[in-house]
Amino acid sequence: MKIPKHIGIIPDGNRRWAKKNGLEKHEGYKNGINQGLCAFRECQKLGVEELTFYGFTADNTKRPSIQTTSFTKACIDAVELIKKEDAQIYVAGNSLSKMFPDELKEYTKRKFFGKRGIKVNFLINYSWEWDLNIKEENKRIINTIDISRVDLIIRWGGMRRLSGFLPIQSVYSDFYVVDEFWPDYKNEHIYEAIKWYNKQDITLGG
Amino acid sequence: MKIPKHIGIIPDGNRRWAKKNGLEKHEGYKNGINQGLCAFRECQKLGVEELTFYGFTADNTKRPSIQTTSFTKACIDAVELIKKEDAQIYVAGNSLSKMFPDELKEYTKRKFFGKRGIKVNFLINYSWEWDLNIKEENKRIINTIDISRVDLIIRWGGMRRLSGFLPIQSVYSDFYVVDEFWPDYKNEHIYEAIKWYNKQDITLGG
Repeated sequence: MKIPKHIGIIPDGNRRWAKKNGLEKHEGYKNGINQGLCAFRECQKLGVEELTFYGFTADNTKRPSIQTTSFTKACIDAVELIKKEDAQIYVAGNSLSKMFPDELKEYTKRKFFGKRGIKVNFLINYSWEWDLNIKEENKRIINTIDISRVDLIIRWGGMRRLSGFLPIQSVYSDFYVVDEFWPDYKNEHIYEAIKWYNKQDITLGG
Repeated sequence: MKIPKHIGIIPDGNRRWAKKNGLEKHEGYKNGINQGLCAFRECQKLGVEELTFYGFTADNTKRPSIQTTSFTKACIDAVELIKKEDAQIYVAGNSLSKMFPDELKEYTKRKFFGKRGIKVNFLINYSWEWDLNIKEENKRIINTIDISRVDLIIRWGGMRRLSGFLPIQSVYSDFYVVDEFWPDYKNEHIYEAIKWYNKQDITLGG
C-alpha cells in the first residue's frame, strides 16, 4: 500500500458534536484531544512522515471568548500529548498576535522529542494571509487580482483535488465533484452542484 | 435558492473520456468545447456573476505535443465561442512563455462583449507559482517553508472545503472527507482515507 508522506488533518465538527450530545458548543473541543493522539499513533504505525493538524485560524479567534479559550486550551493540550511521543513539533501561525498562546511560542522553531520520528505541524492562529505575507496595502503579490474569491468549485472527472486552481481565491470555496468526465457534461450537473451548495453552511472561515 | 456568485469549473476527464470512447487521448479536448458554452449559458440563466474555467497549466504543457496542441486549440475555440455572448473575458496565465497562444494575448486585459454580463476567466498556461510571483530563488515568500507539500488532506465533519488550510502546500493534495464529526474519530477513518488515496492517480499536475 502506498502511504502518503504528509497527511493534513482538519478536525472539524467539534461544536456540532457537542450540540448533538446535549453539551454547550465550546465543550466539543476538549472531547477531541485524545483523538489527535490516536491519529498520530496510527500514522506513526503506517510510516507517515509528516502530519499537519489544523488547530485554529486567526478568523476563528473572532468567535465568543468562551469558545476561543476552549479551542486554544485544546490545542495546547494536544501539543502536550504529542511531545511525550517521538516527534518533531512545529507550530505555525502569527505569534505576534495576542491570540497566540504563550505556551506554544517555543515551538515556532521545530523542537525534537524522544527518538524524533514524525514531523508534526500544528497550525495555530494561522491564516493564509499571514503565511503568504499578504499585506492589506500590498495586494499586488498575486497576479490574478482581477479574479475574485471563488464560492463553488465544480470538478468533473471524479478527482478530489484542486490541481493548483487559484489557490488564493479558493481558500474558502466549497468543492463539488462530478464523477462523469467533462465531455459527458450535462446541465443537471450544475443544478446538482448548486443544490448541494445550498445545503452548505458558508462561514468564510469565521 | 442561493446562487454562488463565482463558480470555478475544472473540466477534467477529457483523455479518459476519449479512451472510453475508443479515440486517441488528444481527441478528448475538442469534444469538450461546446459543453463550456452550455455551462456558461446555464450559469448566465441562474444569475452567476463570475465563472472561471481551468484551461491548462504550465505543468500540462510538458505533455506530448499532440496533446498540448489539442488542448490549446480547444481553449482558443472556447474563448471564441464565449466572445459571441454577453461576457467580460479575461485570460490569466504566464503570457511571456512560448506555450501561451498568441490568439489569447489580447485577453490578458479584460475585454467586453455584447451587453457585458458575466465575467468569464480562463486560466491559460496558468500556474500557482506564476500567480503568486514565487521565484525559485526566493522561496521566503511563504512563512511555512518548513512544512512540505501535503499529499492527502482528511477533513472530518462533512464539509468539502479547505478553509484556508496551507493553500500552497495543498495545491496538489487529494482531499478526503469523513462525514463523522472529529470527536467521533475512529482509526478506521484513516484507513478508509488511505485506501481511497491508493485508488487515486497522483499526477502532481503533470
